[in-house]
Amino acid sequence: MTGLYETLKASTLAQQRAAIRSGVYRSHTAGLGKGCLQANLAIMPEDYALDFMRFCQRNPKPCPLTGVSDTGNPMMFTMGRDIDIRTDVPAYNIYRDGRLAASVNDITSVWRDDLVVFALGCSFTFEDALMRAGIHVWHIDNDKTVPMFRSNIETVPAGPFSGKMVVSMRAIPEARIAEAVEISRRFPLAHGAPVYWGDPAGIGIEDISRPDWGDPAPVGAGEVPVFWACGVTPQVAIEAARLPLCITHKPGHMLITDVAEDAEVPVLTFTTDATNIQ
Amino acid sequence: MTGLYETLKASTLAQQRAAIRSGVYRSHTAGLGKGCLQANLAIMPEDYALDFMRFCQRNPKPCPLTGVSDTGNPMMFTMGRDIDIRTDVPAYNIYRDGRLAASVNDITSVWRDDLVVFALGCSFTFEDALMRAGIHVWHIDNDKTVPMFRSNIETVPAGPFSGKMVVSMRAIPEARIAEAVEISRRFPLAHGAPVYWGDPAGIGIEDISRPDWGDPAPVGAGEVPVFWACGVTPQVAIEAARLPLCITHKPGHMLITDVAEDAEVPVLTFTTDATNIQ
Repeated sequence: MTGLYETLKASTLAQQRAAIRSGVYRSHTAGLGKGCLQANLAIMPEDYALDFMRFCQRNPKPCPLTGVSDTGNPMMFTMGRDIDIRTDVPAYNIYRDGRLAASVNDITSVWRDDLVVFALGCSFTFEDALMRAGIHVWHIDNDKTVPMFRSNIETVPAGPFSGKMVVSMRAIPEARIAEAVEISRRFPLAHGAPVYWGDPAGIGIEDISRPDWGDPAPVGAGEVPVFWACGVTPQVAIEAARLPLCITHKPGHMLITDVAEDAEVPVLTFTTDATNIQ
Repeated sequence: MTGLYETLKASTLAQQRAAIRSGVYRSHTAGLGKGCLQANLAIMPEDYALDFMRFCQRNPKPCPLTGVSDTGNPMMFTMGRDIDIRTDVPAYNIYRDGRLAASVNDITSVWRDDLVVFALGCSFTFEDALMRAGIHVWHIDNDKTVPMFRSNIETVPAGPFSGKMVVSMRAIPEARIAEAVEISRRFPLAHGAPVYWGDPAGIGIEDISRPDWGDPAPVGAGEVPVFWACGVTPQVAIEAARLPLCITHKPGHMLITDVAEDAEVPVLTFTTDATNIQ
């Protein structure tokens, strides 16, 4: 896939989406959709949608809601001019009764009229901003997956959804923590400011070198482990809720939207000719 | 009420809430709950809640969602340690089939097990920030209600909820518009940055001296009318949807929460002893 990935990286968003939609490209989306918001996905029957939406509203740092479909409508019209959620993500995981039942590249055949799609912001946005400020992000520099840990921070429950917050760790030079906090706080739709930094034991993490998900990353001399709320949190809450059907993106294989990464609100919409409309 | 208002202004939040809960204080909340987020209210049967929540998600500038209750639970536990929504707002409007049916000071007798409470951020937060920066807000200096207009900007519909965006106008010296935009953009839960400034006709407002709601306010020499998305937008959308039952706060008579006005997220929650938890 590397050749195709490199080609797509230099292509337009429309070309990237066409390659994904046709099934030609089935790999991760890091580095694609330059400047556009990428999103995690959770698709579930309407019966669970109000509680899940309440869970997101109550836990906005791990679950920053960026889009919600109409029930049964696979077009994510608030986040793109032509996004069909059944085909426009490179890879999906299908869960039945809380267990992974299949990984597929197209969910057209499992789509139902009672499904609601939730799109949630991801960390790509604030990581880009950290790097632009010259703050290195080790797992990106080293082509690894960010280390993620189950913390002892409780989420605020809603209906069947609850559980501990999952956090991702980036080691930051002590002198630049305040700056990293300030930069990431500007992106509430990308997990916002860190939830904690310092001794990992303070949030129930026993061994920083053994993440629950992702790859280990070093904490160098003069660096402090900084923890951000992580989009795996809702996935864990959804698994624990044992929904009869739930479809997510396959980790790293995100939805690329038409929304600008630094947009004030993640909605493509205002219909007027006025030029000052923000 | 003036004497009581002045007394309450100098009282603690707990005292203010007790005065409201007991029915002793039934007037507006501007100037009370210093430093705390105040919220607009919309209470409706669960049947409409998912669509209304989608409407808020799709129109975050007029409808910045700050809290959602569990169905049938009047305690707004994410926004306060002891907020009973049936008694803790000074005055409510009850709508039946889209029409104002009653204005009351307590909704205990109309509360039902299928009701869901939505709390939405209001403009007090960014107005305070503008004034702290030395940008005068005429309607506050002159003890008037902000002028509000029905614009031609379409909201993004969700289920039965749709309509034009209502905007509020504040005249700002031309040289300070960029600053006013930057300041208010920092408060996404208080309508965020303006949606438009300049010639009112550009968003379909014919006569700036005749607001659809509130009091007229002058636009002085060297000033430009600046328009922010307004919390009346969801009220208009709700009225047009003709819900069998909907309860709102009476304008100006808001819910005072325990959440800090400048909180990153409007949720009182994290349960851990760690000191760096944000």
